[in-house]
Amino acid sequence: MQDRTINQASMDPSRHPQTTSSNNSKTAELDPVLHSIGFEIEEVSPSQLTGRLPITTRCCQPFQVLHGGVSALVAEGLASMGAHMASGYRRVAGISLTINHFRSAAVGDLVLARAKPVHVGRSTQVWEVKLWKQPGNNNKAGHPQIISESRVTLLCNLPVPDNLKHAGDALQKYAEGSPKAATSSKL
Amino acid sequence: MQDRTINQASMDPSRHPQTTSSNNSKTAELDPVLHSIGFEIEEVSPSQLTGRLPITTRCCQPFQVLHGGVSALVAEGLASMGAHMASGYRRVAGISLTINHFRSAAVGDLVLARAKPVHVGRSTQVWEVKLWKQPGNNNKAGHPQIISESRVTLLCNLPVPDNLKHAGDALQKYAEGSPKAATSSKL
Amino acid sequence: MQDRTINQASMDPSRHPQTTSSNNSKTAELDPVLHSIGFEIEEVSPSQLTGRLPITTRCCQPFQVLHGGVSALVAEGLASMGAHMASGYRRVAGISLTINHFRSAAVGDLVLARAKPVHVGRSTQVWEVKLWKQPGNNNKAGHPQIISESRVTLLCNLPVPDNLKHAGDALQKYAEGSPKAATSSKL
Amino acid sequence: MQDRTINQASMDPSRHPQTTSSNNSKTAELDPVLHSIGFEIEEVSPSQLTGRLPITTRCCQPFQVLHGGVSALVAEGLASMGAHMASGYRRVAGISLTINHFRSAAVGDLVLARAKPVHVGRSTQVWEVKLWKQPGNNNKAGHPQIISESRVTLLCNLPVPDNLKHAGDALQKYAEGSPKAATSSKL
Repeated sequence: MQDRTINQASMDPSRHPQTTSSNNSKTAELDPVLHSIGFEIEEVSPSQLTGRLPITTRCCQPFQVLHGGVSALVAEGLASMGAHMASGYRRVAGISLTINHFRSAAVGDLVLARAKPVHVGRSTQVWEVKLWKQPGNNNKAGHPQIISESRVTLLCNLPVPDNLKHAGDALQKYAEGSPKAATSSKL
Repeated sequence: MQDRTINQASMDPSRHPQTTSSNNSKTAELDPVLHSIGFEIEEVSPSQLTGRLPITTRCCQPFQVLHGGVSALVAEGLASMGAHMASGYRRVAGISLTINHFRSAAVGDLVLARAKPVHVGRSTQVWEVKLWKQPGNNNKAGHPQIISESRVTLLCNLPVPDNLKHAGDALQKYAEGSPKAATSSKL
Repeated sequence: MQDRTINQASMDPSRHPQTTSSNNSKTAELDPVLHSIGFEIEEVSPSQLTGRLPITTRCCQPFQVLHGGVSALVAEGLASMGAHMASGYRRVAGISLTINHFRSAAVGDLVLARAKPVHVGRSTQVWEVKLWKQPGNNNKAGHPQIISESRVTLLCNLPVPDNLKHAGDALQKYAEGSPKAATSSKL
Repeated sequence: MQDRTINQASMDPSRHPQTTSSNNSKTAELDPVLHSIGFEIEEVSPSQLTGRLPITTRCCQPFQVLHGGVSALVAEGLASMGAHMASGYRRVAGISLTINHFRSAAVGDLVLARAKPVHVGRSTQVWEVKLWKQPGNNNKAGHPQIISESRVTLLCNLPVPDNLKHAGDALQKYAEGSPKAATSSKL
């Protein structure tokens, strides 16, 4: 099944050039765990985050396909950054994540990720994170194929303790656009 | 709230000695991604898997607490191994994971993990994975406190392709007990 | 937050006239439980199902707002019918459902529902079901507001027992369009 | 697979006599939607709720088995009541529910339900709800078999509007035991 919700433009390979050292250092600063498995953060804003994961053995399970837990790690990482921005840099805490896996990705594949807010409320936020694999050896479809989809729910009305006041500084440095205003929803 | 479902015996710190080189090499062989974030697999059997994760900056997000995605990674990794064993070493594929986060764990904490099957059917398996933090700096409760709980759903009736026939060999080497018989449930 | 994914056209109130007796009898035949809480099935096809739920005390909890379990009931009902059609009228079995609630709906509100396939594989299908409330007393936003979003996962390769061969007949009578071809995904 | 977590005593059929009119009126008062599908609430306390659902066509889908959405409805209903009590009768709002279905139940089966808190925090609660079918025509195992398991997450620090101050009165009338104290967890 072709995923009709893919924005072909935003998933255009020409917009995803080879690894850049600036994306690498940004990822190392924003989320060292994502960096350690080879993920590269690209766009960072309160309304969308994107990134790419070249599949290597660093992120595979023994059957040589992308570790399902790595997909969840990417989802939780991007959603946490997004919710932190969208809350106006308050402290956020992930309270649940659900991921559905649709297809595998194998060594050599290039996986693209995109996180978007589904709900930005006063107390909670819900983010959607989708992963696709680019056309290539394991994708003969001629277009990006979705490999997983997550929903991440976060509490977003937590005070930031004094000793962590600067923990969000790196994110503010890279964020594009202004924090999203809160919705009228009480949840 | 004290979690009454914790088996205090199995969570006894004396059963979780310092890092052993054998657990380290076992984890490197069974799940390199779990190994890379510092997780150490201990017990491996079709009815239970356990392990430990000393919290270091390698597995934390910028607020210096355990990255929620790492908890999901541990859950997916342990459940996949468990389902592979419980299916009699057929190929399994995780199709969904849901995790609830209850508490944070910080650098210096020791986190314990336990995976158990909730449902072993002909077509699907569901595994529960719980993480606790040991009493210490961030846990004054005098007993392990639960930090997250996952449900991992896997398809377990997939054929193993010829070129991957040996991918499960490492797991068979370490597995204790015999594979669990399939249930009467058709799901 | 305005939900940008709403297709305003398909949510146009003029396309949702007053209760019709034909929709009522269709719902009674297709899903008696949905019928009993006042839900009316409208469009029925392998690629989309829609319907409406006028909120009355029949579907509310004691705080006089839509019972969250009713939203889940609608999601499971529509997704099951959709997956049954999209599988070519094989037997399907829901294996999991996740719902996120965003807003409440109260007595007097009109709630619209739409189910769409997210993934149609050989072994499993995943459907998305969204509920909105129409502009009115409890929605001053001037456009439909999303109140919940579900993901329903179903096994879709189950044989239909002989004694149930006719259980899908009602659905075939009402279905628009032909069953969707299976995807190349093995999951 | 035998579910070892079932408390056989609490699932003893002798503790589940025929429908009583007091349970019927209690359910009608506490949750009219549950009442409408034939569910009977039994025990009601901040640490456990139980009930029973005799399977009739009122709660089945066209394949004549228990509608999966009804299982979710039971879970959301019991968890909401439980969280309302455990919060000290503050207003609670379900923000997500995940249910895994393991087995079917058919007309004539007796299904038992039990809800227990998994996490009672300052801001959120998570409840587990399990359903079993009693030994009988569709269960030859000689013990209750689990048919589904849910996790319900609720926000529990919401103020109760003045016009709804009495909405929880019915629950206080039937509740056994005192409200559970909040945990030290900030989530």
